[in-house]
Formats: sequence, structure tokens, C-alpha cells
Amino acid sequence: MKQSYLFLIVSIVFVGFSTGKVRFPHRHRYKQAAQSNYTYVTEYFVQKVDHFGFENDDTYKQRYLIADQYWNKNGGPIFFYTGNEGDIAWFCNNTGFMWDIAGEFNALLVFAEHRYYGESIPYGPDAYKSPKHMNYLTSEQALADFVVLIKNLKQTIPGAQNSLVVAFGGSYGGMLSAWLRIKYPNVVVGALAASAPIWQFTGLTPCEAFNKVIANVFTSVNRECFENIQKSWEIISTVAQTGEGRDFISTTFKLCKPLAHSSDVDNFKAWLTNAWTDLSMVNYPYPANFLEPLPAWPVKAVCSKLTLPVEGKQLLSDLSEAVKIYFNYSGQASCLNTTQQATSDLGDLGWDYQSCTEMVMPICADGKQDMFEPSPWNFTQFSEQCHKRWKTYPRENWIVSEYWGKSLETASNIIFSNGALDPWSSGGVTTSPSSSIVPLLIESGAHHLDLRAANPLDPPSVLDARQSEKNLLKMWLGQVQDDKSGQGGGVYNVYATDKYTIP
Amino acid sequence: MKQSYLFLIVSIVFVGFSTGKVRFPHRHRYKQAAQSNYTYVTEYFVQKVDHFGFENDDTYKQRYLIADQYWNKNGGPIFFYTGNEGDIAWFCNNTGFMWDIAGEFNALLVFAEHRYYGESIPYGPDAYKSPKHMNYLTSEQALADFVVLIKNLKQTIPGAQNSLVVAFGGSYGGMLSAWLRIKYPNVVVGALAASAPIWQFTGLTPCEAFNKVIANVFTSVNRECFENIQKSWEIISTVAQTGEGRDFISTTFKLCKPLAHSSDVDNFKAWLTNAWTDLSMVNYPYPANFLEPLPAWPVKAVCSKLTLPVEGKQLLSDLSEAVKIYFNYSGQASCLNTTQQATSDLGDLGWDYQSCTEMVMPICADGKQDMFEPSPWNFTQFSEQCHKRWKTYPRENWIVSEYWGKSLETASNIIFSNGALDPWSSGGVTTSPSSSIVPLLIESGAHHLDLRAANPLDPPSVLDARQSEKNLLKMWLGQVQDDKSGQGGGVYNVYATDKYTIP
Repeated sequence: MKQSYLFLIVSIVFVGFSTGKVRFPHRHRYKQAAQSNYTYVTEYFVQKVDHFGFENDDTYKQRYLIADQYWNKNGGPIFFYTGNEGDIAWFCNNTGFMWDIAGEFNALLVFAEHRYYGESIPYGPDAYKSPKHMNYLTSEQALADFVVLIKNLKQTIPGAQNSLVVAFGGSYGGMLSAWLRIKYPNVVVGALAASAPIWQFTGLTPCEAFNKVIANVFTSVNRECFENIQKSWEIISTVAQTGEGRDFISTTFKLCKPLAHSSDVDNFKAWLTNAWTDLSMVNYPYPANFLEPLPAWPVKAVCSKLTLPVEGKQLLSDLSEAVKIYFNYSGQASCLNTTQQATSDLGDLGWDYQSCTEMVMPICADGKQDMFEPSPWNFTQFSEQCHKRWKTYPRENWIVSEYWGKSLETASNIIFSNGALDPWSSGGVTTSPSSSIVPLLIESGAHHLDLRAANPLDPPSVLDARQSEKNLLKMWLGQVQDDKSGQGGGVYNVYATDKYTIP
Repeated sequence: MKQSYLFLIVSIVFVGFSTGKVRFPHRHRYKQAAQSNYTYVTEYFVQKVDHFGFENDDTYKQRYLIADQYWNKNGGPIFFYTGNEGDIAWFCNNTGFMWDIAGEFNALLVFAEHRYYGESIPYGPDAYKSPKHMNYLTSEQALADFVVLIKNLKQTIPGAQNSLVVAFGGSYGGMLSAWLRIKYPNVVVGALAASAPIWQFTGLTPCEAFNKVIANVFTSVNRECFENIQKSWEIISTVAQTGEGRDFISTTFKLCKPLAHSSDVDNFKAWLTNAWTDLSMVNYPYPANFLEPLPAWPVKAVCSKLTLPVEGKQLLSDLSEAVKIYFNYSGQASCLNTTQQATSDLGDLGWDYQSCTEMVMPICADGKQDMFEPSPWNFTQFSEQCHKRWKTYPRENWIVSEYWGKSLETASNIIFSNGALDPWSSGGVTTSPSSSIVPLLIESGAHHLDLRAANPLDPPSVLDARQSEKNLLKMWLGQVQDDKSGQGGGVYNVYATDKYTIP
């Protein structure tokens, strides 16, 4: 086993090919919504389970969070978060940007949970045991939920009838925001799609692009860091060939469950691979607790343990110090658990189903341009493994047909913000196919940094990006004239830069 | 029972409310494809039954007709007919316009059959007996079929890879063409949607608009014709109260099955109502055999029997002469059959299912502004009747959400041609919501006259319309500059008029 990839924040999926097998352990990544700093009301809306067929008349309750304390009922807009693969309260609490600007826009805030996640699960938690009950977990059904909910809110909330609606989302939620505007421009006037890799699909982006971004992030901090990680895999393989070597690794890394078999070693590598990948995604400029409690600029912190060209067991020892910053920054863990594979976690299971049906996002490694073990992309193997688990075969090309691939010439009013430090920027929209599709590349941004709450340590590039986003929102909402009028308000940067080097 | 409405060409559905019941007899309208004047190859493509779920992996064979004798394989476009509710060969043979212009455009012609019609029936003819098997008869699934087929044709036909595709369709097929461009502009560069009533849905068009067009058509030919038909219903009711009166009607109209019960009288009225409605739709300027063999300008021919202000049995006698022009112009029928309700006809059954699920198109009559018996639109009753037949409830508003209703500002490259004589123009797009959505109102056009083959008796308005359509096609295909360049080619008439009065 060599290559690992993961999708977005919540779900981690490993793929290994060295043994000709594809494995999909799941790691528990889902964080219970922390105590919220924000005030909202939790509501539930009865949705049809099937928007695209008429035989099944079942319904389920979709949860949504609503906050009207900033809203001007006389024409204020609705900011609608298109929930992704997890508990909506967690996304709500990690999307401070919407809260930060709600007052300026007099906006009603709504955060809608995605079906089959959090509390919004058709057929309840047992749904995951039945292909029949999982049948309605698709992006199309999720978009239809959002459409029906938005129309209902506008009809039922006094004052909302004529409110313009803007979609917000990050990561998979950002993909949904963009797709909502693409497929239902009658419902949302525009979308802020943050770190939304809508081009991370077959034929649109080379599979190696994702890991190249990670390579760049680590290399730019410290070339030795990249090289040490790159050569670590072979050292691990060599050392782990003996029982003594496996004991050394288990002790050095303080593993809760010592490595016993070669499959344990594969899991161990996957666990490391995910750590490096996650670090790129959450490489924020201030201490944060998004996936794990971490210091500011965590890649820099981790790489500070890997500054020397070392070899053998010394490299493994240094590596363990590095990885502990990721997994045990708080110092509270007495040991590290490499097999945290939460099969009972709905968020992970749901995303695994989605990636085994529609959301086929090829990612590969060659161990040269990137720092991971070689792991080619093999759709056939992937497909067979999916069928074993879910009794369905993925459709490799449907999403590109359904959501237009790169043919976005007729799409409009979408901001695609991407962080240059975020591996998912590889599959993001970074060139503009039409005048009102605005790519924003945030120089020192990790995974949807722009959606997070303002922080004194925010770099200028994200401040620039947020200002551009606000300007564009105002244009869409008719609060300012558009660019062509020369009245200002529509100024934005395609590349938001920093005035100083990333610390 | 009073009001009747019908959808498009193939399917006739009656609704009656006088007894508090809704009835849905079906009349056989489906014509077997006549001997074709056109040369094409019949092919079949394996489609997934369910494009929007992964549990059901079943497939079916979609029929399509293909003609490449006009095609320039070096960049010629593909003209793709989006099949509607019936045998695709019949639509192919009644869409002469595509054949007429194929040479000029060097186009490949493809006519794709709609699922659940003609030969393209998932689960075979027995599908109609099972709600489970009918579940996949939706416009969304049909569009997905077209998308997958187009992509496959482009991949597999040598020379087609970079061909631009234009969608063509009339009636419901025109709605599908427009919706294909709206939802999948990545697949078709534009659409000619002829007589496509995409606004004949709840909240978009008053339900009485449809019958007002019919009133205008009959009134403009002959005011007495309109008034005689308008007052005929009460006379029929009065005369039919006695056995002698029913015998009189049966004899006068040469009914194959004499009127025995009051329900027979309701059916008789519905049969007449449909005749007048159909006549508006097929009011072509030359003899044609679309629904029935008819003379040129059949409304004029029929109304020539109703020029005097008559009453009572004399009116019924005149009415019988008029209706025989519609039902027995060839003179070959020894009697007229008012109960031709082809429940075994797949086209009719399929459309009934569609109108009982997604395609809820409200039509009503008040007997004052129109010439029919009063028949209010009652969605609740309609819905209950649908449930009795199909075990499903219709969704009144979904289509408007799915296909944007009147919010077409971001749509592009669609021609909505409507005939001023066609009742379906009431629900057509007759005002332009964006610069490249082009409504064309054809002054003396009935139901998608412009799609029919050129005829020496074509009025100037349809010649104008076809010229505008060709100009716009050339613009979309990049064969001429667009309007803004001042290079010509993009000239079109929003209202295509005739230089002489309709004969």
C-alpha cells in the first residue's frame, strides 16, 4: 500500500495498489459541533426522499439553522450555506465569514444540512446498511433539497418573498454552491464557492496535480522536509521487515497498537500520508482546531523537525517528532492511534458512498514529483472495490456531463476562491471561462481560509479576497453598479497576493 | 362533464367536473409512422434506466434514427431531434425542416426516441402496469438519455468529436430541446424549440389562456362559427335529455355507438371539444394528414358549415356537417366513433403518466371568453384522480423550479417559435428574457408549422420564421458573425407577419 488520498475535511479514504488491492479504511474525522459562538435557531423541513421519481413517496426531515438578527426584512438578502458531508452545525461554526458580513448586508443566514449527514438522514442511521436506502444520496438530490427549501423559505417567511439568495459553501459544499447556481440560477443570484474542486474529475485535471501542490507547500517551507518525507516510505518498509524494526517504529511513534503485520505497516503509511495531506489543507496562519488542534502555520511547525538530511532510524525518529505536532499538539494523547477508522461515522460512510457513485475524483502519486509512495490511478480496481462495499459501480464521467465540466461559458455569478496552499486548488477553477465567473487565488490560503472568521493574523491575501468577494456580492445584489459602468464596486483580484512573505 | 384539454399531438386527456368527478378517457391519436420519404438508419443505444440513482443497474435500448448523407465529416454540425411522446419515426417524418436544411448546413441528422415511447420502453410494454417500472419516465431522465447519447455519438462517430450539436424539437419535444440547452449548455450550442409551451404551468400562465386562443382562431374565421359552437353544449344537454333526442344526435352525427346514457353524452361532448381544439392545432395552410386527413385551412372549412345563427336541432345538424370534415374528410368512415380511447396505446398512456407526475399543465374554460363548457381547474381533484390511476401524486410546482419558470435571464441560444393560431402558444415563450432567447411568433402558423417540410402553400410568415431560424443557427454555429458585429446574418423577426390575409 502506498498512496492515500482524502476528500476535503470530513472523510478520509485510502487507496493502495502495491498489493494490487484497493483498500478503504475510514478514519474518524468528524468533529462534533463545538459550542457555538453564534446564535441561531434549529429548524427541520420535510423533504421528499426522491425528487426525481414518483414511486417512492417517503419523506425525511432536513435540518437547517437560521439566524435573522442581522436581517432587514424589507429587501435584505438571504445567505444560504449549501451543507456538505457532515454535521451542519460544524460547518456553520466554521464559516465565520458569513457571520462577519451578515450585518453589513442585512442578510438572513441559513445553513442547510446535506441529506444523509448530521441529523438529516432518510431512513435513519440504518440507511447505510441498505443499497436501496442509500439510493437517494446524490448531489442532484441534495441540490433539489436546497431548491425546495429555498422556495419554501421565501414563501413562508414574511418579508422574504422577494429576497435575493446567494449560495455559500466550502469544499464539497462549495461545489454544491457552484452547481446550484449553474443548474438553478432561478433560485440563487450567485455563489461563493470556496475551495471547490469541481474540476477534480476524470479528464479535467491530471491525477498527479493534487499531490504536486502538497509537494510545493512542503518544499517551499523547507526542501529537506519534503525530501525526508519522500524517502521515509522506503525506510519504513526496510525497517518494518523485522519484528525488532516494527517494535522500533511502534515505540518511536508511541503507537497505541504496535505494528504486527505487513498490513499494519500499510495502515501506518496511510495514516502518515493523510497527516501530511491534512496539514496542507489546514495550514492556517493562526492556531486553529479544525481537524486537530494545531499551531499557526502547522506545516512550518512540523517541518521544523525535519530540517536536516538524515537517514535510517534517525529519520524515523525525527519524523515521529514531526507527526506528533499534528496528532498530539495538545500533548494530551498518551499514544497515537493509526487505526482510527470510524466505520460507524455517518459522515465518513456517506462520503465513501458518494465517492463510489458520482464523486469519482482521481488522485495519484509517483514518488518523484510528490513526496508519497507511487500509486497510479486505476479506475477499474477502484470500481470493483466500490462494488464490493456498496453493491454499486461508480460512474466515471457523469458528473462532468451533469455539471458541464470546463464548459462554463454560459455560467455566471460564481466566485471560485482557491488557496494556493490547498491541495484541492489543483481541481479548482483557476481560470475564468466567462466574464462573471471569478477565480480568486489566495496566495497564502489553505482550505477555504476565506470562509473562516476574521482573525488578526489573517494575511493580506485573504483580506483582499474577502474584500473582492464582498464587492461581487454587492454587484449581484444590485447594491453597486457592475464593472462596466465605471462606478466601482466590481473590482476584484484574480490573484490575491501578500505584501509580505508568509512567516 | 364539460371541459376538455389535450396535450400536443399525441395524447388527449379529458377532464370533467360537472359531476364532481375527473375522468380521463384516452383517445387513440397515435399514427403509425407512414412510409417515409426520408432515408435514415435505425440504431439502438443501451441506456441506464436510472441516471440519478445507483441501486438500479438495469438498462434499456433507446432507438435513434441517423442520416449522414448531408454531413460534412470535417466539422459539420449535428442536428439532434429530442424525441417526444411517441414513435420517433413519426416525428422524424413530420419534421421536414431538418431534412430541408441539412444540405445547406452539411449536418448529421439524429432523431432520438423518448424513453417509454415507440420502441424505447424500459421493461417492455408491461412497464405501464407497474408504478415501480414507470418510475423512470420523467423529463429529467429523458434529457439525461439525450446527453449520454450525444456524448457517445461524438466519441464513436469518426469526425464527430468536435461537431457542434443543435437541439431541435416541436411541442413537448420542443420543451425538451429548450430544457436541454437550459440544463446542459455544455452539450448543445443552441435549441430550436418549436411550439414549446414551457410556461403552461402553474403560476406562469392563466389556465384560461389556452382556450382563448382557440376562441380567437374560430372568431377570426367567422363569428357565427364561434357562437354556434359556444351555444351547442346547452342544446346538446337539452336534446339529450330524452331518448328520442339522443337518437336524433346519434343519427345526425352518424355515431357508431348510439348515445344511451348521460355518460355517453359527456363523452360525446369531450369528443367534440377535442375536435375543435385539434383543428386549431393543425390549422395548416395546405391539405395535411397529421392527426386526420384534412383540407387546407381546416378551421375555415369546418366553419363554412356554421355561418348562420341557428338554434336547436338545426344547429346540431349543422354542427354534424362541420365535425364530419374533421373526422371524415376522406369520406371513408361509415360511422364516427366517439369512444376511441386507446388505453392500449403506449403514447397516450405514457403522456397520461407524465401529466399525472411532472407535467401538470392547467387548462380551464369559462364558456364566455371561450367556446367550451365551463370547466374550472381543480388541482386537488386532478391529483386524486391521478393517484387512483397511477398510485402517484403529481407535483404541481416542481417543473417550474427545475426548468427556471420565467427566470430565463441566464439562458441563451434558444429560439421559441410559436404559431399565433396554435392554442399552445398561450404557454409559449413570446417575450424575450435575454438577448439570445428569441421568441418568434408566426402570424399564420398552427402547431409547429415551421418544423414541417417546405410547401408551396406556406404563408410568408412561416418562410420568414424559417429564414430567421436558419440565420440564428448559423450564428450559433459560427458560420456568420452575430448581430453586434454589424455583419448581418443575425436578423430575425420577433413577429413574423404575412403580406396578405390568411385565405
